[in-house]
Amino acid sequence: MTALSVTVPSALLARVHADAPLVQCITNYVAMNIVANALLAIGASPAMVHAEEEAGEFAAIAGALTVNIGTLSPVWVSGMKAAVAGAKTAGKPWVLDPVAHFATGFRRKTVAELLALRPTVIRGNASEIITLAGEKGAGRGIDSGDPVELAEDAARRVAISQGAVVAVTGKTDFVTDGAQAARIVGGSDLMPRVTALGCSLTGAVGAFLAVAPDVPFAATVAALAAFAEAGETAASGAGGPGSFAVAFLDALYNLDGHALDARVEAQPASAPSSLSAPSLA
Amino acid sequence: MTALSVTVPSALLARVHADAPLVQCITNYVAMNIVANALLAIGASPAMVHAEEEAGEFAAIAGALTVNIGTLSPVWVSGMKAAVAGAKTAGKPWVLDPVAHFATGFRRKTVAELLALRPTVIRGNASEIITLAGEKGAGRGIDSGDPVELAEDAARRVAISQGAVVAVTGKTDFVTDGAQAARIVGGSDLMPRVTALGCSLTGAVGAFLAVAPDVPFAATVAALAAFAEAGETAASGAGGPGSFAVAFLDALYNLDGHALDARVEAQPASAPSSLSAPSLA
Amino acid sequence: MTALSVTVPSALLARVHADAPLVQCITNYVAMNIVANALLAIGASPAMVHAEEEAGEFAAIAGALTVNIGTLSPVWVSGMKAAVAGAKTAGKPWVLDPVAHFATGFRRKTVAELLALRPTVIRGNASEIITLAGEKGAGRGIDSGDPVELAEDAARRVAISQGAVVAVTGKTDFVTDGAQAARIVGGSDLMPRVTALGCSLTGAVGAFLAVAPDVPFAATVAALAAFAEAGETAASGAGGPGSFAVAFLDALYNLDGHALDARVEAQPASAPSSLSAPSLA
Repeated sequence: MTALSVTVPSALLARVHADAPLVQCITNYVAMNIVANALLAIGASPAMVHAEEEAGEFAAIAGALTVNIGTLSPVWVSGMKAAVAGAKTAGKPWVLDPVAHFATGFRRKTVAELLALRPTVIRGNASEIITLAGEKGAGRGIDSGDPVELAEDAARRVAISQGAVVAVTGKTDFVTDGAQAARIVGGSDLMPRVTALGCSLTGAVGAFLAVAPDVPFAATVAALAAFAEAGETAASGAGGPGSFAVAFLDALYNLDGHALDARVEAQPASAPSSLSAPSLA
Repeated sequence: MTALSVTVPSALLARVHADAPLVQCITNYVAMNIVANALLAIGASPAMVHAEEEAGEFAAIAGALTVNIGTLSPVWVSGMKAAVAGAKTAGKPWVLDPVAHFATGFRRKTVAELLALRPTVIRGNASEIITLAGEKGAGRGIDSGDPVELAEDAARRVAISQGAVVAVTGKTDFVTDGAQAARIVGGSDLMPRVTALGCSLTGAVGAFLAVAPDVPFAATVAALAAFAEAGETAASGAGGPGSFAVAFLDALYNLDGHALDARVEAQPASAPSSLSAPSLA
Repeated sequence: MTALSVTVPSALLARVHADAPLVQCITNYVAMNIVANALLAIGASPAMVHAEEEAGEFAAIAGALTVNIGTLSPVWVSGMKAAVAGAKTAGKPWVLDPVAHFATGFRRKTVAELLALRPTVIRGNASEIITLAGEKGAGRGIDSGDPVELAEDAARRVAISQGAVVAVTGKTDFVTDGAQAARIVGGSDLMPRVTALGCSLTGAVGAFLAVAPDVPFAATVAALAAFAEAGETAASGAGGPGSFAVAFLDALYNLDGHALDARVEAQPASAPSSLSAPSLA
């Protein structure tokens, strides 16, 4: 990542607007509509193609793939694996969203199989990332039971062991690839009251990855900055989660790229390590 | 149900807010997003986990289970049965929403099988409850063709024969467990113009059941009161079903518990019976 | 089609309002909620019944069937075929929405099989119709890469070869049955930024077909006019795709029938042919 100045969020958002990248999203039934609407609002072209019979073939056409296990079943897991295989063969990046992976044996097994296929980016809430690192989290179901700060060390460890960018989203987001790290500030307390905004963010990471596959850390940061900015904008006039969700899509559509750049705080990487902590901008 | 004063809707809503109960919702593809959003707005934590491979395991973690047959298929029916089995083993209450169960042979068979598993609560529209009682209704598809008043006797009979709380929802809702009965007033003519609000109400019944599993009649009444209040609030400024749906989620989020209590009218139970008709409050 | 005066859009909309036709929609996971809401807003009664075990039985009850292949899988294709068989046996019209049918081998095969079952109406975007006619389009995924004008000749050829009404929707819509043709003006640049409005339009074609099965060209034109009018109305106060989608459902609910009639421009049919080009109104 040598040319950091062209990988600030505003520059990447401009690329999404210019390229309208095709993003294949395998996501859960709850999330599909708002994931698609969030990607359209931000300027990308989403396609929900999941069946084993075509998911791999389509992944070669798309600019990036996202896989979310929210409402999984065996036939969907087969489709996910076919899509990932297609993406990898075609050299396309892919994102894993391990929804409540700790809750059941079926989820644990599925996520272990998907991790073995080496996602480019992993995005989850704090409870999901903490348990991915092998620790015990406070999550029960879909919603996180832990704050993001408690997941930062876990994120670093998962990033290094998986060779992936890891994003923990919540009140203040944290992103790291093991060598670099950043916090993203913004959003709203109403965001966890709207279902599938996390899943939508996974889709948005796919959109930024598609236009910047060589800099997955910067692409992930840009997607999170876009959601942080849109969330704070949307909250200003919202009377509850219904009006917030509407305003959030409007805000994604009307994003000011430069406001995104101000959302990002570069962080030192893993504390006592010899890795440098480059500034993001 | 001895301590009625602590089971008024306002008291149960306070418990939902305090506990954020985890509710497993197996519902149809049309409804998933708004069911999840309604539960989040009311303060619960929804989880859509449906596959046979994990539905029963998850039901033991959740506080309550809801099963809606709107867009059923054989593989989903297997998941529903596994979830119910898990809920029963763990002693958790479950709600059945028999969407258009009279329309096809596949639906009739599925609902007969699910009824044999003894739901704690059955919620349907008037046509669905009338036909559950073995009578002929005017419904064709998803929407009711009958008024609620025509379904009250049917509801009492189903409640007694099934040993369940039965809720009939429509212009004025009716709830009975055979011994007690109540009508809930409120809502809006726009509610049947927004898809899956009935399915969302089934989810809300699950949220209240999760915090009050010992008083399923009171829990069901509370959920209906919440929707009646939110519906009337949302209708005041709505210009059509689109803005109504948005305002409805906002209203669920901003519910005033005491307004819920005023929505409930206790009713005499089955007319000439020896059963008493206790006041709800 | 002898009595054109009673098949103008305003007259057909009045019939939808009066009859509340039951429309069976087999559509994709992304679209289900908004398709149902759009049909309810316009006055129809949608039912998403897709499983092979009941789809054909239900099609005999419904007034029309719509089939959209957005998120297809083999088990859904079986349900689609069963539904179409049921509709044809019962003499009910059906609509095909061949979403991104050119993108994968599985889609190409599925659409070929469905076309052999003779849809009453085919609705697609320009890239979809151009490729249906055997030409090369610029589409990659779900979104069109071609303008409608480039698809008009293709639409005429598909209409004649298939014996179907063909609708191409985009900035200005085009409808033809090979003998008649019309353009429908209106809508908004925000419409392609809201997912599944095309799928919803397919559902609306089903609603109009259900009340006017003998005049599928006029029914299709009426549905497109309804969306063109509602889209233009909704755009006036929208701040982005979120608020647009809300206003769009409100506008469908509040449609002024006569405004629909003004949206339609009758066109000459295939250029040098001997077919007459009757005025629509």
